Amino acid sequence: MDVFVPFDPRDPNSRLSSVLSADQRRAFAAAMLTDVLDAIRATGREPTILSTADLDRSCAVVVDDRPLTEAVNGVLDATTPAAVVMADLPLVTPEAVDRLLDADAAVTLAPGLGGGTNALCARHPGFRVDYHDGSYRKHLASAEECGASVHTLDSFRLAVDVDERADLAEVLLHGEGEAAAWLRDAGFEIEITDGRCTVSTAAGGR
Amino acid sequence: MDVFVPFDPRDPNSRLSSVLSADQRRAFAAAMLTDVLDAIRATGREPTILSTADLDRSCAVVVDDRPLTEAVNGVLDATTPAAVVMADLPLVTPEAVDRLLDADAAVTLAPGLGGGTNALCARHPGFRVDYHDGSYRKHLASAEECGASVHTLDSFRLAVDVDERADLAEVLLHGEGEAAAWLRDAGFEIEITDGRCTVSTAAGGR
Repeated sequence: MDVFVPFDPRDPNSRLSSVLSADQRRAFAAAMLTDVLDAIRATGREPTILSTADLDRSCAVVVDDRPLTEAVNGVLDATTPAAVVMADLPLVTPEAVDRLLDADAAVTLAPGLGGGTNALCARHPGFRVDYHDGSYRKHLASAEECGASVHTLDSFRLAVDVDERADLAEVLLHGEGEAAAWLRDAGFEIEITDGRCTVSTAAGGR
Repeated sequence: MDVFVPFDPRDPNSRLSSVLSADQRRAFAAAMLTDVLDAIRATGREPTILSTADLDRSCAVVVDDRPLTEAVNGVLDATTPAAVVMADLPLVTPEAVDRLLDADAAVTLAPGLGGGTNALCARHPGFRVDYHDGSYRKHLASAEECGASVHTLDSFRLAVDVDERADLAEVLLHGEGEAAAWLRDAGFEIEITDGRCTVSTAAGGR
């Protein structure tokens, strides 16, 4: 099973610009990518980064500067079965990757919070992606169109993609890799506000 | 395995008061409770509602008007093993309940978004709960104190508790029971805003 990790190193995590500088966002995105690659490797698979620009990583890199949907469909045109795991999932574990890749369905979808699709495994050659505006429903429809069976993977660790400040609390609470360590080094801490965990930037951050 | 579902019928889901009237919140909370009870029953277990007030339901009901932490610890004082599943989890499936109850660990925790604990299964007689302010970390500490092994359950369906407007989108996207039907009947629809699914109240709501 080929596992692709889309990554855009140019201006990552722009929604975090209120708490992280551009340099910090690049470093944090690189740490999250490392966590995702590590989890995939721990299952015995070798990931390939699908990058929008050249990247210096000890990992196979395919450069495709088209938008995400087109680049992933380019992969699916050439490769079946294939799995696609987003790079901003620092809670991911090898167990979650195994559950994604070992599912029997023709298409396995791991939904993200807010209607996105954070990871998928396509065993049907007709399945194509569309990551715009509520992709989970579009991917259900795409699977139905080509007659592919669908399994929706019930995973918290794949559902939490990090793009807003509130998501950083989940990384500090549940992350065990480079991204959580990076946040702690940058001075982020858990803070309780109105009964929910949020983050404070006591000793750093923007 | 005894499975308890804490429920407060008096002023439920107060954080939804910007989109639902008090009567609507009570009806929606009752629908979510039904979904949780149905999922537990579908696994072959009979749930018990741990209610803060009398309740007319075709289900075993234990009334305890103490705060949540005290009421649940009262249950754990009397019953081991026991499971506790919150009533505001309308995405829950029988499969997710089975994963919770079939786990081997002395304490299994299903974290909620924002650091809470949405469901747990306690097989160790020394484990006690504390639902205030980031309960997931407190429950890890409580398990460690009594030497109980811990399993953190990786479930999106147990992680999404509904208490804010944004959570309603998850119900419309992934719910298949009474709560999702209630929202649709009340006029709630998925709306795409800034690439994420939110809800609109085209034909109803407050």
